[in-house]
Order: sequence, then C-alpha cells, then structure tokens
Amino acid sequence: MIFMETSLRPSGTQAAHEKPSIGLVGLAVMGENLALNIANKGFGISVYNRTAAKTKELAEGRAQGKSLYPTYTIEEFVASMARPRKIIILVKAGAPVDAVIDQLKPLLEKDDVIIDGGNSLFTDTEKRSTQIEALGLRYVGMGVSGGEEGALKGPSLMPGGPRTAYDDLAPILSRIAAQVDDGPCVTYIGPRGAGHYVKMVHNGIEYGDMQLIAEAYDLLKQTLHLEAAELHDIFSEWNEGELKSFLIEITADIFTKLDPETGKPLVELILDKAGQKGTGKWTSQNAYDLGVPIPTINAAVESRILSAYKTERVAASKILSGPERPAFTGDKKQFIKAVRDALYSAKICSYAQGMALLKAASQEFKYELNLSECARIWKGGCIIRAVFLDKIKNAFLRDPALTNLLIDPDFSGDILDRQANWRSVVQTAAQLGIPAYATAASLAYYDAYRSAQLPLNLTQAQRDYFGAHTYERIDKEGVFHTEWLQ
Amino acid sequence: MIFMETSLRPSGTQAAHEKPSIGLVGLAVMGENLALNIANKGFGISVYNRTAAKTKELAEGRAQGKSLYPTYTIEEFVASMARPRKIIILVKAGAPVDAVIDQLKPLLEKDDVIIDGGNSLFTDTEKRSTQIEALGLRYVGMGVSGGEEGALKGPSLMPGGPRTAYDDLAPILSRIAAQVDDGPCVTYIGPRGAGHYVKMVHNGIEYGDMQLIAEAYDLLKQTLHLEAAELHDIFSEWNEGELKSFLIEITADIFTKLDPETGKPLVELILDKAGQKGTGKWTSQNAYDLGVPIPTINAAVESRILSAYKTERVAASKILSGPERPAFTGDKKQFIKAVRDALYSAKICSYAQGMALLKAASQEFKYELNLSECARIWKGGCIIRAVFLDKIKNAFLRDPALTNLLIDPDFSGDILDRQANWRSVVQTAAQLGIPAYATAASLAYYDAYRSAQLPLNLTQAQRDYFGAHTYERIDKEGVFHTEWLQ
Repeated sequence: MIFMETSLRPSGTQAAHEKPSIGLVGLAVMGENLALNIANKGFGISVYNRTAAKTKELAEGRAQGKSLYPTYTIEEFVASMARPRKIIILVKAGAPVDAVIDQLKPLLEKDDVIIDGGNSLFTDTEKRSTQIEALGLRYVGMGVSGGEEGALKGPSLMPGGPRTAYDDLAPILSRIAAQVDDGPCVTYIGPRGAGHYVKMVHNGIEYGDMQLIAEAYDLLKQTLHLEAAELHDIFSEWNEGELKSFLIEITADIFTKLDPETGKPLVELILDKAGQKGTGKWTSQNAYDLGVPIPTINAAVESRILSAYKTERVAASKILSGPERPAFTGDKKQFIKAVRDALYSAKICSYAQGMALLKAASQEFKYELNLSECARIWKGGCIIRAVFLDKIKNAFLRDPALTNLLIDPDFSGDILDRQANWRSVVQTAAQLGIPAYATAASLAYYDAYRSAQLPLNLTQAQRDYFGAHTYERIDKEGVFHTEWLQ
Repeated sequence: MIFMETSLRPSGTQAAHEKPSIGLVGLAVMGENLALNIANKGFGISVYNRTAAKTKELAEGRAQGKSLYPTYTIEEFVASMARPRKIIILVKAGAPVDAVIDQLKPLLEKDDVIIDGGNSLFTDTEKRSTQIEALGLRYVGMGVSGGEEGALKGPSLMPGGPRTAYDDLAPILSRIAAQVDDGPCVTYIGPRGAGHYVKMVHNGIEYGDMQLIAEAYDLLKQTLHLEAAELHDIFSEWNEGELKSFLIEITADIFTKLDPETGKPLVELILDKAGQKGTGKWTSQNAYDLGVPIPTINAAVESRILSAYKTERVAASKILSGPERPAFTGDKKQFIKAVRDALYSAKICSYAQGMALLKAASQEFKYELNLSECARIWKGGCIIRAVFLDKIKNAFLRDPALTNLLIDPDFSGDILDRQANWRSVVQTAAQLGIPAYATAASLAYYDAYRSAQLPLNLTQAQRDYFGAHTYERIDKEGVFHTEWLQ
C-alpha cells in the first residue's frame, strides 16, 4: 500500500514515516483536545469531522507542526490508517454515534476497533457491541472524564470492551491519560458497556459532590452571612485537608472571580438554575432497576431538577413562609468546622452508594469490575479527583469483597468522629428552613444502613392486610399470610 | 345468532335472556373478585381462565346462582359475548398480557374492546393501544385499585383509552366502582396509557403514605418506647381527624392483632424486609424523565429497597454506632402531636409531588388529565382513600391550573400551622439517629420549593468552570461563559 494519499498532509513530522493506526471522528472541543493530546504524546493521528472547515482550522491552527493528519472524507480517513485501525468517535451521545458507526462499518476490516468516547448510555453500548462484534470488528465504550482541559492534558479513561482491544490501545491510552503517583489513570474496566457504566456512576458521584458543596455554601452563607472573599478562604482551607479535591479547589477559585462590569463576585450574579445532560439521571434510574439505594446522588439529581423551577420557586417564596431565623450567636469557627464535617461525612455516604452500585452492576452485568482500580483511575484527570479516592482504593485493596464503604475501618472511624457535627448541621438546616437535601439524605442513609431493625415490618403487615402479599417472620422460616380482621 | 352455545351454562339467571357483553380473562384473586362484583351488580359476565379447574371451581362455588358464565376455550369465551364485546384481562403485567391479547386478536371483531385491568407499565399500554387500534379494535388500559376486597366490593377505577370505549363501559364501571358522596370512583382518565399512568402515580403516592406512617411508628416506638396497644390508641385517634384514611385505619387494626402462638403483637414478629412489585419504582424512574422532583415518593421506594439489605444492616449495626440516646424527658403528648403534624405535613408534600407529576405527564403525553377528578376517584375504593383527597379535589376544582398543591391556601395554611412541629421531629430524628428519610426529604422539598434562591448558582459556575457549560445571569438576558482562571 502506498502511504501518502493525495490529500493526506501531515501537519507534523514525528510519525510521518508510517501510517497512523489511530484516528478520531468528531472535532468539537473534547475531540479536538483529545486528538491534540494524542499527537502531543508523539502518536500519529488521523482526524475527520463532518464539517471540513473545522478540520482545516485545527490542522492549520493548534495542530500546526504536530503529527495530526487531517482528512476530508470518511473514506480518506479510514484509508489513512494502518490496521488494525483504532477509531475514536467523539460525537453527541445517541443517534449521532450510530450515524458515524454506519458510515464506518462498510469501510472497516476485521479486528479494527471502534471506540465510542462519548457519554453513551451503557445499554446503547451493550447493543452496539453485539452488532459490531458480529461483523468481526471490535467495539470499545470508553468513558472520558476531565472536561476540555482533561482531554488535552490528561483525562481519566474508562475503556470497556474486548480485552484484546484494550491491549492494543493500552500503549496510547496509558500515555494520554492523567498520571498520578500509582500510574496512569486508565485501566481495563470490563467487557461491553462496563466502561460507560463506570463513567455514568462517576458522573452520578460528581453530581453528589457538587450538590453537597452547594449545600455547604448555602449553610455558611445563610447562617453566617459570609462574603465571597470569606467563602474563598474557607474553601481554600478545606482544600488543604481531607476534602482536598478538584471540585473544592475550583469552588475556592470561583469565589475570587469578580464580574468586570459590576465589580461584584460573579457567582452571585449567576442564575440558580442548574443544567444537566442525563448521566446523573441515568444513574438514579438504573440504581432503582438494580435495587441499590443511592439517596445522596438522587438528592443531587433532584436538586438540579428543582432548581430549574425558578418561576414557581419565586412565586412560592411569597406564599410559604419559613421558620424564624434568629441571628447566629454561636461559635462561628465551630459552625464552619461542623459544616465541613457534615460535607465530609455525607461525601463518604455518597461514594459508599456509588461503589455499592458498581458492585451490584458488576454482578448483574458480569462486568467483573475491580473497585479498587476504579477508585485509583479517578485519582487524577477527572472531575471528582481527590485525595479521598486513595483511601477508597486502599479500602477495596484490603478487602475486594467489601460490601459497603461505610464499614471499612478508615471510613467508619471518620464518620464516628464527625457524626455529632453532621447531625447538628442537619438539625440547624431543618430548624432554619435551609434545604440541605443531600446532606440530610446522606444522614438518613447512614442511619438506615446501620439499623438492624427498620419499621418496614409495619409496611409488610399493611401489604399483607390489603393485598395478601404475605410476610416473613423473625422467629421462624416460611412465608405467612394473616386474615387481619378476624 | 343463537344465544346458548352448548357449553355455555349460566350459573345465574339474572341476565339469562341475553348474551353478556362483558367478559373477563384471568381468574386469580383480583379477576375472580372483579367478575363476582360485576355479576353481583346484575350484569351477565363470561369468564375464562387458562386452567379450567379454576373456572369450574368458581362457577360451582362462589358464583353459584349468579349471572356468571364459565367458558373453557378462548373461542367459546369470545363467542359467548354480544358485540361490541368488552373483555377485561386480569393477568400478570408483561408477557402474559401480550399472550392473552394474541389469543384474542384473531377472534375479535370491529369495535370490540380489550381492557387491561392489571398494573401494566403505561408505555406498554401505549404500544398495545397503537397495535390493537390498528386492527379496528379498541384498547383500554384500566388501573384498578383496592386490592382483593376492593375488586369485590367496589374498587377505584382508572380507565384510559378511546372515549367511545369508556362510554360503552361506563354503565357497568359506574356500578361496580366504589361509591362515595360525590359519585362512583371512576371517571374517563384520558387516551392511551393515561389510566395506567394515573394508577402508577397512585401507587407511588401509596408508597409515600406507607413510608411516612412507618417512620411515625418508628419515631414513636424508639423515642417513647410505646407498646402495640398504645400505638393502636394513637393511630385510632389519628384516624378521627385530618389523617383519617384507610392506611391509618388498618395501621390501628394491625397493632391489635396478636400472634396466636406467642401471644405477642404480630407486627413485632414480622421481618422488616419490604417487598415491592414495580409501580413505585416506575413512578420514580419516570419522574426523572419528566423532570419532576418527587423526593418523598423516592425516599419511600428507596427505603423499601434498603429494608431488603437485612443481612448487611445487621452486620453494619455492630460496627457503626449511633449517637447517645438520652431517655425522653419532654411532654409525651406534645411529642405524639408533633409526630402527627410531621406526618400530615410530609403527606401534603408527597401528594403535591404526585399531582405535579400527573400535571407534567398530562402535558408531556397529551393526556388532558382532570386532576380534580383524579383526586375524587381516589376518595373511595383504593388504598390511599382518605378524607384528605376531598381537599385536593377542591383545590383543583378552585384552580384547575394550580401549579403545586403547596401553594393552595388550604394546604399552605395547614403546613404553616404545623411546620414548627414538623421541623422539631426532623431534628429529633437526626439527633437520635432514627432514619426518618421520607419525613426529612419532604421537609427538604418544602424548603427548596419555597426558596426563591437556591445555591445552584455555584453549581452552574462549577459546570462552566470545568466543562464550559455556560450559565445565565440574574441581571441580564443571555448565555454566558467565563474563563475562570484568567
């Protein structure tokens, strides 16, 4: 085969002696940055985008002098790569993914690998895997976390699919992923939809973290009436300790940003209607199917939903008055510490739920997930990166069969030390009418999980009373029904 | 046509002069009771069951002397009815419904009506409607609530489908439904899956009610260490006032039932692992799709899920210690009143969520639901029947476009009078480590719904920071993005 097709103009020289074996379709921000990341690590990469102008702009702009090869038809794109081809698709989840796959299918050859790097629903990935592997091709659903910046500088990568495809990709993925103390933030996640499943739960956990931080901010602001500068100081200090994480760090940053026009803290001028793109919702919905309680994550997803009802909320605020709010007279420093302890304790619950969901999914879908590795690859690159994840990694390293993070000695100890403060914060929120939904739901989860006895014996009695649904007993085996009115 | 087929032996005489126009397939408890209800009202009814013995047993037993006609093949069953036939299917949701429909389809004629009276997922009903109506038949998805007893003595009926089919069914349905002060507990719900949708949300609300009652029981038991007899007295008293309802009534009953073997209150011997059959979960999952927050109902569904983790909970109870539980020293009567107020306030939130979900579904699926009528037909026959529903009926009668029950003056006033007690109960639960998840989630919902300002401006800032997701501002129109680190 001749290497250089007429229109194949390498914009770099590094890999110009051979055809690239990797390519990328879809040059929106994430795709462009991921392609540059690959080229920056010295790998040749072919790129293709539906709109040619975008490709040209990249090739002549940011990719100038790099081993990135622009192509302008899908045929040229496929022909430009060495076999087995490894083609990353980075387009909007849903129909656009299928559209690209349909374009590629007739052009690819045995053992070529299609990698969907978007936020596809894992069940879609499962279906596509089956269809594509029936053609003798290989399909990888890969979660990519870290936003634009992560894509360029080193994301956390969660590839799922055939092990052989991962092995072929590993030399590249391990170079482009974020690097932390114990290696690159990539690992073989598992077969079929495993990668997208783990990415979905990562996002659910991200929703939980963000909501818990928002509630901490709200509690501090509404109780102590702090200014943005003071909030910056608090979050900066929190970022020195057990809460150290990307999300706490950017929160501290955010409080320093002033609106150039008004000179006010920009965050105070932002409308409190949060958007969402579906992965949080999917996590909640799937957890119901698998029968795994994830109250913190659900509270976070629902809080975003409720935030969007701005008009209704404003109207309701004029009708539904809250409780009296006496001026704060306690120890300010102690209250700030209590809020931090509540945030940290609730965060443990949120991760306990997320990991329990992964564990259940691993069994249900036969993903054979390594939970310690999942935690490890989240230590860098992704939105939830935090020192905290090292502790989770170690918990599952100590006991790969750990049923729930809450009973790991590290975490149970952490909560026991902090529960008095956590409880007092939830009480304060209820007393003052500050909605701390995720913080309170986490506490309810903790208290329910550690309850040997819950009151649902009454629920079972009711179900048997009105629907003859039967019940079990605590003192003997069997299934029982009672005629309650006799 | 000749009326009497050879094997068509009426076991009654009331309608023996003409062919019945209604029939029922599936003689498990619900089907048998509903068929008897129809026969008891003087309507002739043909019945068919896959297992002939069941049909024979019914005909020669409970249906003796009634206008109930046993048939033993599906052909005989269909031939036994006058046109247009109205055939109620009461089999397990899912594949069994399709199996019966497939048997019936080739035998039915234009304008015949198939009525699915089971708990089918509304999206299945939507699909079946389309398929069956393409054949010139009519399809009704009908929610039936009230358990075995309701089916026999008068259920709440939620039929959805073509209006003409409802009109044909109305003379029978309005007789067999529960009768309350303002009419029979049946109304035309809306097209296609509307009936099953409303029934699904009814069940979600039922989960909410049951969980809130369980939490009230738990709070009373764990705080005041009450005996079953005292709990019976409390719930009996509650059943005299604003909480008067079937579920409170049976709760009071349940506490009087002693185990014949041990002499102990039976409820205390029942295992605290609650079952569920899917409709609660579907409600939660669909609410995420429609973007409607239903935290109380979700907390109820999740509490059932968590209750099933009995082994894990027992293990965790030995590791995760709770807070100190000082002996109760307050005013016992006042605490019982506070728990009642918390239950009532949280119940309002739960219904506000359920009705808001119906409102959203009505728009999304073009069901044109009459929310006042939905509340009215729940006043009798069904599991959530309560005096409370009359108040909801009236709220939507006063203002059919009411955005949320919370801002109706009746309900907002009720909560304002009770919020101090409600808040104190949520605080007590957090302080003592009693998981009152649904009660607390309801309060978070109330406080978030009445918040003109939520802290999700920070969430939007974070999303824009790491993902360039953009944000809106409070002081001007437009969509904005900021480079936060510059």
